[in-house]
Amino acid sequence: MPAGPPRTELRARVKRFWELMERENLSGFLVTDGADVRYLSGFTGGDSTLLLSRKHKFLLTDFRYAEEARASAPGWRVVTRPSELMEKAGIQARKLRIRKLGVSGEHLTVHQMKRLRKASRGIVIKPMLGLVGELRLCKSKWEVRQIEKALRIQEESFRKVCRKLTRGMHEYELAAELRYQMVKGGAEDEAFPVLCQFDRSSSLPHGRPGHRRLRSSSIILVDWGARFNGYHSDLTRTFFIGSIPKPLREIHEIVAEAQALAKARVAPGVMYAEVDEAARGFIRKAGYGKQFGHSTGHGLGLRIHEPPAVSRRGKGVLKPGMVVTIEPGIYLPGKGGVRIEDDVLVTEKGSRVLSRLPRGLRWNGNGSV
Amino acid sequence: MPAGPPRTELRARVKRFWELMERENLSGFLVTDGADVRYLSGFTGGDSTLLLSRKHKFLLTDFRYAEEARASAPGWRVVTRPSELMEKAGIQARKLRIRKLGVSGEHLTVHQMKRLRKASRGIVIKPMLGLVGELRLCKSKWEVRQIEKALRIQEESFRKVCRKLTRGMHEYELAAELRYQMVKGGAEDEAFPVLCQFDRSSSLPHGRPGHRRLRSSSIILVDWGARFNGYHSDLTRTFFIGSIPKPLREIHEIVAEAQALAKARVAPGVMYAEVDEAARGFIRKAGYGKQFGHSTGHGLGLRIHEPPAVSRRGKGVLKPGMVVTIEPGIYLPGKGGVRIEDDVLVTEKGSRVLSRLPRGLRWNGNGSV
Repeated sequence: MPAGPPRTELRARVKRFWELMERENLSGFLVTDGADVRYLSGFTGGDSTLLLSRKHKFLLTDFRYAEEARASAPGWRVVTRPSELMEKAGIQARKLRIRKLGVSGEHLTVHQMKRLRKASRGIVIKPMLGLVGELRLCKSKWEVRQIEKALRIQEESFRKVCRKLTRGMHEYELAAELRYQMVKGGAEDEAFPVLCQFDRSSSLPHGRPGHRRLRSSSIILVDWGARFNGYHSDLTRTFFIGSIPKPLREIHEIVAEAQALAKARVAPGVMYAEVDEAARGFIRKAGYGKQFGHSTGHGLGLRIHEPPAVSRRGKGVLKPGMVVTIEPGIYLPGKGGVRIEDDVLVTEKGSRVLSRLPRGLRWNGNGSV
Repeated sequence: MPAGPPRTELRARVKRFWELMERENLSGFLVTDGADVRYLSGFTGGDSTLLLSRKHKFLLTDFRYAEEARASAPGWRVVTRPSELMEKAGIQARKLRIRKLGVSGEHLTVHQMKRLRKASRGIVIKPMLGLVGELRLCKSKWEVRQIEKALRIQEESFRKVCRKLTRGMHEYELAAELRYQMVKGGAEDEAFPVLCQFDRSSSLPHGRPGHRRLRSSSIILVDWGARFNGYHSDLTRTFFIGSIPKPLREIHEIVAEAQALAKARVAPGVMYAEVDEAARGFIRKAGYGKQFGHSTGHGLGLRIHEPPAVSRRGKGVLKPGMVVTIEPGIYLPGKGGVRIEDDVLVTEKGSRVLSRLPRGLRWNGNGSV
């Protein structure tokens, strides 16, 4: 296992979270989302929750994770009371005399809320949207390094697998090979199930790899990623073997240009919607507006999809430390689709594309042509 | 892609669900859990929800899944209104003049509930626990066949991988090989990230595969499964290469016997807790009660973990069609652990063990010794 975040960084995260709790006038907070738990405590196990008062830090878990919790979350008091998690949380919150307890409204279920209310009788519970998420929006240097490591592993898997492309290969085989190479290369896991689509199936924006086989002339669309130390990378490449159908060559060119325009627009202070429009406007003018139905990108971090939403409706402006995907696409039903995706870091003065893999029409084993 | 459930079966599921809605006096139900959505409609995509009135069946999704929804969920009206999912649901529920709308309280988040309440103004919303889950508890013959297919794929992956065991092999390599072989063998995916633990790390009930290497004498604990057509299988085997430490040999024997006793106890009308006690009592008497901290098993189906809980606190009795895991274990910190797990179907008269892989101390490539 690679080392978790430095202890000083973990402490700084909690300190900033305490400031947010103060701003929101909360005397306690219950962190239930696994990525939030990992972000604040360093703990990587499952079925656990964090309870913070303004002074105390508790990690509530069960016997299975007790040992791991003590080792990976220094400075947190580990509570393994053998009751249901929300009961544990309610009882502990009362012990700590918390009066107003914030919870993650986009994660806690209605049923958990009911249990928590029952066990924490008398405490005001306030569902919040993304309070830990506010901290997670901008990545530290250490976090960016983890994403870059995931990218290097992912890119190497692609180079290795492309050398093995053979006619007759199934979509699912290519997907399995990519994932295998990523784990061999040091990834914790794939970031999400590899999407690998040949020919016509590439026109489905969310198709899954099936039994379609590679032909001597084929379109290959792969959307995949690696997870390293909890952090995700996410890339899409669309390339061709054999002859290239004219409409596909055309949309590849348009998507590549739209993607370059959107990437060039990434900088601090720029609205998410402006970045989206940089790609969308270009595709619209080229006459394919309706064939680009999804958003341009999303944030990346401890989750494969996290704020900000780089979309028409995304509200807010880019800030240094944000890492977003830029992934416009054009899909022609019955013919095929093209999507190209990179991961971009917002820097103090502009941006830096973190991914290095060529984006060309062909993959020749050394680079793109 | 293997074919989904027969249309007659899908229709029967909805009919039975309508009966449950009537019993609960609900004029509508919003199905938000992905497995529930798949169970009732046959639809396999993501980010979708089902809205049922007593007469109508709507599948609410977005443009990405529209095509797939129409193809895989016959008889459902597909709504792709470009608004947020809970808004879509609220608006549609009002159109249908639903007065009392059931929702899945263990799945819907507090935030979604808030949005739904806003959009469905005037409608009484009632959080329920597992109403679709009630139907999913007992599997049809078709469902059992899918689990058996997952098992056959999983078992074959084990045979293949065991032939490749070599000294120096990492835990994560063995895990990656198993998953690769399952996908090659026709699985949609692994059922959950493969657990593969050598030697001392086998004493962690939820350890993840790391960089530990296989030695000439090693304990190998693998807990893995396949997913076929949405259905999961789940097995654990613990075996040895080279010399076998005496305490490990002893606990292997105890766990194997405890597991056999629990399996023999599985029959309709038997309480979940009785099955648990069959394994637990034996392990307790052997002096290892405290080293068996988790429950004996869980239900299997469209989720890897679903009701019933085969545990001390599990309330209820087994019914024909239920499929449960039986997986006691003993863990000796610093030394190693043993867990043995099979999948068992409750039949009309008793039970049938669905898994076929040997459970012995050794794996010699043909069977156990």
